[in-house]
This record gives sequence, C-alpha cells and structure tokens, in this order.
Amino acid sequence: MSRIAYVDGRYQPLAAPAIAVEDRGYQFADGVYEVIPVLGGRLVDAPRHLARLGRSLAALAIPWPLSARALAVVMEEVRRRNRVREGMLYLQVTRGVARREHPFPAAARPVLVVTARSGPGFPSDLEAWAVAAITHPDQRWARCDIKSTALLPNVLARQAARAAGAYEAILVGGAGMVTEGAASTVWAVDAAGVLRTRPLDWAILPGCTREALLELLAGGDLPFAERALALEELRTAREIFLTSATSFIRPVTVLDDAPVGEGRVGPVARALHARLAAALEGGGAG
Amino acid sequence: MSRIAYVDGRYQPLAAPAIAVEDRGYQFADGVYEVIPVLGGRLVDAPRHLARLGRSLAALAIPWPLSARALAVVMEEVRRRNRVREGMLYLQVTRGVARREHPFPAAARPVLVVTARSGPGFPSDLEAWAVAAITHPDQRWARCDIKSTALLPNVLARQAARAAGAYEAILVGGAGMVTEGAASTVWAVDAAGVLRTRPLDWAILPGCTREALLELLAGGDLPFAERALALEELRTAREIFLTSATSFIRPVTVLDDAPVGEGRVGPVARALHARLAAALEGGGAG
Repeated sequence: MSRIAYVDGRYQPLAAPAIAVEDRGYQFADGVYEVIPVLGGRLVDAPRHLARLGRSLAALAIPWPLSARALAVVMEEVRRRNRVREGMLYLQVTRGVARREHPFPAAARPVLVVTARSGPGFPSDLEAWAVAAITHPDQRWARCDIKSTALLPNVLARQAARAAGAYEAILVGGAGMVTEGAASTVWAVDAAGVLRTRPLDWAILPGCTREALLELLAGGDLPFAERALALEELRTAREIFLTSATSFIRPVTVLDDAPVGEGRVGPVARALHARLAAALEGGGAG
Repeated sequence: MSRIAYVDGRYQPLAAPAIAVEDRGYQFADGVYEVIPVLGGRLVDAPRHLARLGRSLAALAIPWPLSARALAVVMEEVRRRNRVREGMLYLQVTRGVARREHPFPAAARPVLVVTARSGPGFPSDLEAWAVAAITHPDQRWARCDIKSTALLPNVLARQAARAAGAYEAILVGGAGMVTEGAASTVWAVDAAGVLRTRPLDWAILPGCTREALLELLAGGDLPFAERALALEELRTAREIFLTSATSFIRPVTVLDDAPVGEGRVGPVARALHARLAAALEGGGAG
C-alpha cells in the first residue's frame, strides 16, 4: 500500500513533491516534530506528546498550525488512511515558507506534515528487544530540550552506532556526563543498585516515555534517583535501558562491545516493562 | 518575475511543491549548502565555494549529486533564468529521500536544489553598509566547520539580533572566546592595532571570503594575527567587521548598543574593502 501524508491541508501520496524549497524546515531546520506511538489502532499518550509539541513550538515562537480539535481529526485520519494498528504517527511543524533570511519572517504560516507507518508495536519479548549501544561524544547544540528537526548530529551519532554494529549511541557531554541517547532517554541501575536517569535540563529532551516511567516509579518501591550518570558509572552499571516513544523500554545488554552487568536483560528493566505494559493495557501512560 | 528553482533534475517555479516529505533535509537537516555571490552576471569564486561544498559533502558521506560540469551548467542556467546580475546563487544538497530512520539509508540518491536571487551586489558606500551587532552565546553544535542546513541555532541568534535592532549576532563560546557571526566571519582590529580573526577549527565555518581576505593580507603590510578574540578584546576593539559571501566586508560600528572604536568605519576595513574591490574587478578572489 502506498503511504499517505497530510501536508499543509491536503492528503497526498507520501512520495509526491509536497514541500516548497523555501520552507524554512528545509533550508534552516526551523521546525519541530513529535513521534506518537500507535497501539491497537489508538494513539498512545497523545496529550503528553501534544503538550511537548506545544512547548517546542513556544520555544521557537511558531504558532500552532491547527486547533487542537482539527489536529486530532487529522492525526486520526492519517492513521486510518495508512491502516496503522501498531506503529507510529509522525508530526512535523515548520515555521513556514518565506524568502530565505535567517530571522523569523514577518508573515509565514506554519506548515504541518503528518505521516504514519506500521511498526513492531509494544515488545512482548524483552530479551529479543535488547540491543547493543556505543558511547559517543555529544556534539549537539545547547537546546536539546526543544524537539527540533536540526537532527544532523543525532544522525551522525546513530550512523556511528550502526557502523559499530550497535543500535543506539549513548551521548556523553563535555564533563564526561551522560546526556541521553541520540534518539532515546538513558536509564541505568548503578553499581549500588539505584536506578538513575538525568534530571531535565537543556541538554536532554523531556521524554514522554521518561515521564510515564517516572509516574510508574512514584510508589518508591524501586530505589531511584533523578541524577546524571558519569560515563564511568555507566560502564559499571548492572543494567542499562533506553526509553523512547517507539522503543518503549529497550534494554542495552552490550555497551562498547562489553556486556552490561551479566549481559542479559535485568530485573529492573523487566519490572518496569511489566508495569508499562499494564499501564498501556489500562489505557494509561505510555 | 516569478523565480525559478532547479530541483533534482527539473526547472520549476520556486513556490511549487518540490521536496518529498521524507527528504532527509526536511526531517533531519541531513544536508549542506553554499551561497555563491553573483556580480556583473558572473559567479564569484565558484571554485572556492564548490571545494567547500565538496568538503561538507565528504564530512557527511553524501555523494556529489552531479558531475562538476553538469553542476556548472545548472548553476549558470538558474542564474540566467532568474536574470540575476547582482545577487546570489543558493545550492543545497541533501542525502536524499528515504524511509525515516536516523542512520544513513542504504540507497538514497542526493537531492540538489539550486536557486538564485538578485541582491545589492558589492557595496560601494562602506559607511552605508555598516551595521550594528550584538553578542550572543554560541549554542551551536560541535561541527560548525560543516556548512549544514541544521541552522536553527543560527536562526535564533539572528532573530535575537533583529529583536535588539541589530543585523548580526556575534557568537561567544563557552570559554568566552568569539567564534564567528551567526552567518559571517568576525574580524577585529584589537587595542594594539592588530587585525585578528579566529584560526580554523570545528567551531567555525572556513569562510570563502575569509580565505580571500587572507590572500589579500599575505603581503604582510597590515599587522595581522590568526588568533581568536576574547569577548573583552572585542569590546575594546578599534574596528570590527564581518565577512561573508553576500556581505563581502561589512563594518560593525555598534556592538551591544555601544560604539565600536569611534563608531565609524575604520581604516583597516576601508583598506581591505578597496583591495577586495580591486581583486573582484580583476576577476580574482572574492
């Protein structure tokens, strides 16, 4: 089936010419995006993703392209037209089309693109879902809290991972502290058995799955601290896992060609995977 | 006259839908660009710009989209169809169209876009050409030597400049050292009378006009050092000016609302402007 995209008011084949050359997304990466998982034909956690989209838009002073109600209609229509039951919805908003000059144009109208595609859905077999990762210098800009399409550094980091036979690049900032994965949040159970993830700042994206997991940790039964990890702590971690909208919880069992802990999926990842599965079945956070 | 763009093999109206949604330039800023000045109907310093384009492409492992000969034909055709005698040519090359995944796709074909537009040409009145600038934190990524379209930080910096009533943002890195302008190379005559500009590294673009100016300085008659400037040295500079493909030499007479030196175009900027004008008339570097 050929895929359908919504582009600035129209539904059209995904491969068709759609975007103007002077769309600022194309010439300046002047735009933001979201990836929303689809499970059982329903968008997962859409309000959380749309709230983040709103923060990204506000940070760049880009207006919403549609009302919330119209956007919801478009999202469901794109999902339906692409017959996605398990997979994801992709939304991109750019500042719009204008004669090429760096500063914001006086009169641009934001351009919305929505696509959808099928994917593996929620993982049932966490062992099969586990991946290898590399560590990689974080070469990104200073405002990674904005989910912008200026993703070239992320592309290069993930390409470096693939070239090393790995799935993800775990990024390490100037001070030797882990920031996040090139397209995921990083979590680790440290040598003392405490689950750790970096607190939010400009260096990382406020992950929606991260936020969902924090809610699942709120009971306090699992030792947890929102505290950044040094690279050396990552190397001695008992467990490492990633979270993202389409990875959900993704164990990392190999880091830089060395096993993480015992080189198998650990109990904390398993426990949180089970909780997340239950929350998603209940229609809750994910 | 409606403008014409070359897009991946075709000449078409600039405003027409042209780019696929899954062009990696649109979704990942996975592309590079060049701006080549046009004076008297001729491209200025095209070999230098194309050499830099080649370096940017190589850094990202993107192949050339066309042979050098075919590219030259396209560039001249776009200039001619847009009737540009004074202005600029814009080239963009992205990695191509592929299903959205961060790592390089196995089989993408690079997409070339070429546009042209008229502009002011080479400045005759340097006093009228002078601008105000602000200083601004350099929030860009670690590989600014690659002329990529991941320009969102540059957009935000130039927007901050405009909001302050200025033309350019001079970027200051973490160690309090000037890197470059958001879209220009920064030069200053320091308090000791020595013309300074930052040596090339990953933090700055190897400017084509910068390179041309270095050739014009090769005689050694003007005190010059390729040495980075601290912010405080910028504040006490006798002269500041910017260079870029379309600004040529652009004096900065106001920095953060304070006059630079005596607040007028200085003798070093004047001398280099005259040398550059002579070199351009002779068909040489620019």
